[in-house]
Amino acid sequence: MTYSVAVAGGSGYAGGELLRLLAAHPEFEIRTVTGHSSAGRPLIESQPHLRSLAHLTLDETTPEVLDGHDLVFFALPHGASGALTAQLTDVRLAVDCGADHRLARADDWAAFYGGEHHEPWSYGVPELLVASAAGGKQRANLVGSTRIAAPGCNASTVALSLAPGIAAGVIEARDLVSVLAVGPSGAGKAAKTHLLGAELMGTANPYAVGGTHRHIPEIRQALRGAGAVEEPSISFTPVLVPMSRGILATSTARLAPGATAADVRAAWERAYADEPFVHLLPEGRFPRTADALGANTCLLGLAVDEAAGRVVVVAALDNLAKGTAGAAIQSANIALGLPETTGLSVNGVAP
Amino acid sequence: MTYSVAVAGGSGYAGGELLRLLAAHPEFEIRTVTGHSSAGRPLIESQPHLRSLAHLTLDETTPEVLDGHDLVFFALPHGASGALTAQLTDVRLAVDCGADHRLARADDWAAFYGGEHHEPWSYGVPELLVASAAGGKQRANLVGSTRIAAPGCNASTVALSLAPGIAAGVIEARDLVSVLAVGPSGAGKAAKTHLLGAELMGTANPYAVGGTHRHIPEIRQALRGAGAVEEPSISFTPVLVPMSRGILATSTARLAPGATAADVRAAWERAYADEPFVHLLPEGRFPRTADALGANTCLLGLAVDEAAGRVVVVAALDNLAKGTAGAAIQSANIALGLPETTGLSVNGVAP
Amino acid sequence: MTYSVAVAGGSGYAGGELLRLLAAHPEFEIRTVTGHSSAGRPLIESQPHLRSLAHLTLDETTPEVLDGHDLVFFALPHGASGALTAQLTDVRLAVDCGADHRLARADDWAAFYGGEHHEPWSYGVPELLVASAAGGKQRANLVGSTRIAAPGCNASTVALSLAPGIAAGVIEARDLVSVLAVGPSGAGKAAKTHLLGAELMGTANPYAVGGTHRHIPEIRQALRGAGAVEEPSISFTPVLVPMSRGILATSTARLAPGATAADVRAAWERAYADEPFVHLLPEGRFPRTADALGANTCLLGLAVDEAAGRVVVVAALDNLAKGTAGAAIQSANIALGLPETTGLSVNGVAP
Amino acid sequence: MTYSVAVAGGSGYAGGELLRLLAAHPEFEIRTVTGHSSAGRPLIESQPHLRSLAHLTLDETTPEVLDGHDLVFFALPHGASGALTAQLTDVRLAVDCGADHRLARADDWAAFYGGEHHEPWSYGVPELLVASAAGGKQRANLVGSTRIAAPGCNASTVALSLAPGIAAGVIEARDLVSVLAVGPSGAGKAAKTHLLGAELMGTANPYAVGGTHRHIPEIRQALRGAGAVEEPSISFTPVLVPMSRGILATSTARLAPGATAADVRAAWERAYADEPFVHLLPEGRFPRTADALGANTCLLGLAVDEAAGRVVVVAALDNLAKGTAGAAIQSANIALGLPETTGLSVNGVAP
Repeated sequence: MTYSVAVAGGSGYAGGELLRLLAAHPEFEIRTVTGHSSAGRPLIESQPHLRSLAHLTLDETTPEVLDGHDLVFFALPHGASGALTAQLTDVRLAVDCGADHRLARADDWAAFYGGEHHEPWSYGVPELLVASAAGGKQRANLVGSTRIAAPGCNASTVALSLAPGIAAGVIEARDLVSVLAVGPSGAGKAAKTHLLGAELMGTANPYAVGGTHRHIPEIRQALRGAGAVEEPSISFTPVLVPMSRGILATSTARLAPGATAADVRAAWERAYADEPFVHLLPEGRFPRTADALGANTCLLGLAVDEAAGRVVVVAALDNLAKGTAGAAIQSANIALGLPETTGLSVNGVAP
Repeated sequence: MTYSVAVAGGSGYAGGELLRLLAAHPEFEIRTVTGHSSAGRPLIESQPHLRSLAHLTLDETTPEVLDGHDLVFFALPHGASGALTAQLTDVRLAVDCGADHRLARADDWAAFYGGEHHEPWSYGVPELLVASAAGGKQRANLVGSTRIAAPGCNASTVALSLAPGIAAGVIEARDLVSVLAVGPSGAGKAAKTHLLGAELMGTANPYAVGGTHRHIPEIRQALRGAGAVEEPSISFTPVLVPMSRGILATSTARLAPGATAADVRAAWERAYADEPFVHLLPEGRFPRTADALGANTCLLGLAVDEAAGRVVVVAALDNLAKGTAGAAIQSANIALGLPETTGLSVNGVAP
Repeated sequence: MTYSVAVAGGSGYAGGELLRLLAAHPEFEIRTVTGHSSAGRPLIESQPHLRSLAHLTLDETTPEVLDGHDLVFFALPHGASGALTAQLTDVRLAVDCGADHRLARADDWAAFYGGEHHEPWSYGVPELLVASAAGGKQRANLVGSTRIAAPGCNASTVALSLAPGIAAGVIEARDLVSVLAVGPSGAGKAAKTHLLGAELMGTANPYAVGGTHRHIPEIRQALRGAGAVEEPSISFTPVLVPMSRGILATSTARLAPGATAADVRAAWERAYADEPFVHLLPEGRFPRTADALGANTCLLGLAVDEAAGRVVVVAALDNLAKGTAGAAIQSANIALGLPETTGLSVNGVAP
Repeated sequence: MTYSVAVAGGSGYAGGELLRLLAAHPEFEIRTVTGHSSAGRPLIESQPHLRSLAHLTLDETTPEVLDGHDLVFFALPHGASGALTAQLTDVRLAVDCGADHRLARADDWAAFYGGEHHEPWSYGVPELLVASAAGGKQRANLVGSTRIAAPGCNASTVALSLAPGIAAGVIEARDLVSVLAVGPSGAGKAAKTHLLGAELMGTANPYAVGGTHRHIPEIRQALRGAGAVEEPSISFTPVLVPMSRGILATSTARLAPGATAADVRAAWERAYADEPFVHLLPEGRFPRTADALGANTCLLGLAVDEAAGRVVVVAALDNLAKGTAGAAIQSANIALGLPETTGLSVNGVAP
């Protein structure tokens, strides 16, 4: 069967990527796209790269417009989807790309976002290990769900990088350190001086330094779920670099006492051996963001630095694709019982 | 007085930056520039941005050509300056921008470079703290010296980032973690596929992951000298990003037991309060590489992440300027008794 | 039916894009990929973005390896495919992405390439107008063909930009001027100093200035075919800019005496109204290369500058996709009688 | 003597470059810097690369603040300097980097800007040829002047490219074509969606296509002054490319009947032989924007394309340096009788 789809917030970067991927999905049919200031205008004006959708016009983002679709994807600014989704009465599956429904703990929300803590929705990085009697992965959270909070790009990248070692006990969950080279598309399409091309080209710009980034509680939540026996702690620093898309996360963790390099590699190999979208590269090889650009993949390189006593994991992921829109579609595939890989490519666009 | 100057290896990136800075130095006069495959050709062909030096022709890199100058700067591939300098009989001051003479320990050389360990020369990041009865900075190593090994760009950046905290005992020297966003000019001008524009634009590429980078022993040597009571250990990962120049190093260290955020900031403030070329930014501000582009500065931002138990230092530095050519000229100024800031700018070229 | 496919020269940029697009083509099955220095190595080492092809190993580029496939795509350096294809005995369709078989006139070959002039193969930019009694497009050249020379990226871009006006007589074919902003992937993956990232980032670099570029005769040949009553002449200047892919061609032509702005727009509208891959944007809108990135599209913007007496056409096209690999696959679709759009996307990857 | 200097509009890109260059000028002393929304804040917050000016605080942009300085440089949005400068009573020399006072013809102003046409000030690209009985250059316009409208970056680049040929009669002034690859810093620091980093990285974006760019009348005015016997006409298209600074202008003109390649080269050689800031490269060589980055130079490459019947001039210039701030300072040097090159570098910052 074909599912009717609406995308709320189709004029921004996450919305554009959702539309690009949905346009290639054999089971989903884009019926409606909404915008805010661009409502009433042709979609092609705000997304001039989406020629196959040139027939669409942006609607207002209202419950009336969205209701009646099988699926609604939300790509709205943080805080905007909560009130809206509460008013939907006839939507089989809603997937939110924003942060509103991700955090299980109200105190995390209060500390990093503030304002009302929305009800947590089903959340899951499908490939992420879950500590449980049965073992397993977070994809189990999504099966049959009707309300899904798609994971954030930074959290997916870092959690996928570190969870296998934590679950296997070969690295410590305390004192993790992640430094990310990121492209500015993750910051959205709203005009801000510090995101101007002239400010970002030819330079690297750190931000949210010192533990203030809003994705930190989501990372800790994910690693806790992966079986961290001690409360995870992480130093997390994103650095804007001159590429429009992509996250290259260098994450390091203390090698657990007694763990060998072979133990370490085995933990990651085991975790992702059968995963279509998460790939551990061979010894000595490390990924570039270009290798995952436009794809629904997270590519991992792994090294053990004996002298430093740390395991180093380098992860490459496209913040808009696997990091946001691809994750949302993968989640929807799982929720609806479609093959998980439907409509999602593992090939990047390079060079 | 004016010193006559030769630059050996003037057709490459480090050589070009040396020439750019020397051309603006009021006490140095460029007499001779040498090259290898470009010997016999006008300098302007390999350095088309150096209009003021358009009258120069590249000579062969031989002892005969270099001898007789007051100063010779070497910007040759690693391993090339050793034999050459041994044959110089009439050069007051030689400054090597390569690694040949930097490492005091032969085992470090053997482990990371291999081949013959050259005699260590005077080495110093001028602003770097030295642990000694009298306290002090590494600039003391350079006063009156005739043979100087200029520090490497990565080592300068990381050592300047972390030494104040180690010297003051507010961070631990073990288990340091540095991740650097770097531009490809540091890798030199030799044609290599992985350094092609098409390979590097729009993507972030890690390399030398897992403790294999050759600058690690130099960093440890510097931190040891700054008073590390335990042997420093560091996880060091460079990531190539799409900017031709610049290093943005995010370095983190465990907060020492009992150290407060105020202690931490005070340590860095004290270390660099009077330094013309190293600047600690105010609380909450962090540098961009653009702010140091073309300048002889290292800009530092500092945060204490209590939740992660780590101090985070973000440092911006131009790998060719303060990281290589500026450091070499600053060293020469010190060695010759000139004001240390002669001919060196603190202003970057931005945007 | 499914056609078996080999790609000769699969380790380079054009080869990589062929493989990326072929992997998504429902009627083609990649059986064999060949390389030169990388023969014997896994394809994923030279094309780390092509995860779906990670099972393939590069073979030697020999007639024995290539023979027996329904289709062979050649993505070899110019001059390499001629001798090789002459030895193939059992290949239904060969498509050459190089220049060897494009030029009909031996004197053009002699003037711009030199060496032996290879036999011209079927050549066609499918959407390009052909002057003939019946009217038509170049795609007619390709139907049922067994040997195809795929058009070059610059020629496709410029010819598609200007042919409608020439065919309609609203612009003159003499004194055309095209200036192209191009990414370096068009220059291939061979290591050359002037293509290093440090040479290309943050700067614009012209090359082949003054009428020396090898694609000029191909452009003139295409425009001649479109019905130029006078011999076309064109000033053609490419400028390398810091993006890995893409061509943005600004082409101008003298407005023909008596032609109105409405005549001009009508000529282009008529030419491309039914084309799936060539799109004229509305009045006042102009394309960006990002809008065509990874897509099989050529996007055109059109203006009439009355004061200057010139028509201005801005065209955006991905040199590797519609410019090379997409063109080759589109040609193969036509030759084999498949729907022309099979396996080819019109959506770009942006931002 | 030292001149006291104020910069009005010191928080933007042009203002920042003025300050960077003024800080290195031996005869000028920066006393005052003004801003708008940033008034009252430390300059270093908006210009974090200008460490040597970290002691300055931005003042309000009022006549009271500016009066009393020997020199005032205006780097304000177009239209803002007119009213302000009318109220200054005690400023020896005012130099406006905006367009307000550049255009001699009121109808040009009306057609391209609209609103009140301000009184033209002394205007001159110093090196630009002037057609007169005595011959000469535009610098004569500036000697002893007290009110100077500094030329625009695009006009300087294109006029310097073409004037020698027009003045010498070896190219025609009609039917000129210029296409410029430009960086976004020329568009200023105001936050606009289409100037976001994510919109500009990895792509080339044309704008003001079809003869609408506001710098066109300034170019025509300059070429008219250089001795065009017919009214100059020019097709002018700027293309934003992913570099923060720089203009690479490819300008072509019809070869005049009877003019030889030698005539052409001689015309440009003669025009710039003695100029310190405008350089014609040797036959077969063309400039990159990197070669002029941060420098007060315009670098020119020249070719005659006999087959196309056109002369091609490629010019590289830094829009903020020689294109704006350097031009303003060079003008001030001339006006005040200082050596024209005082405080201005000919060396670019590359790679």
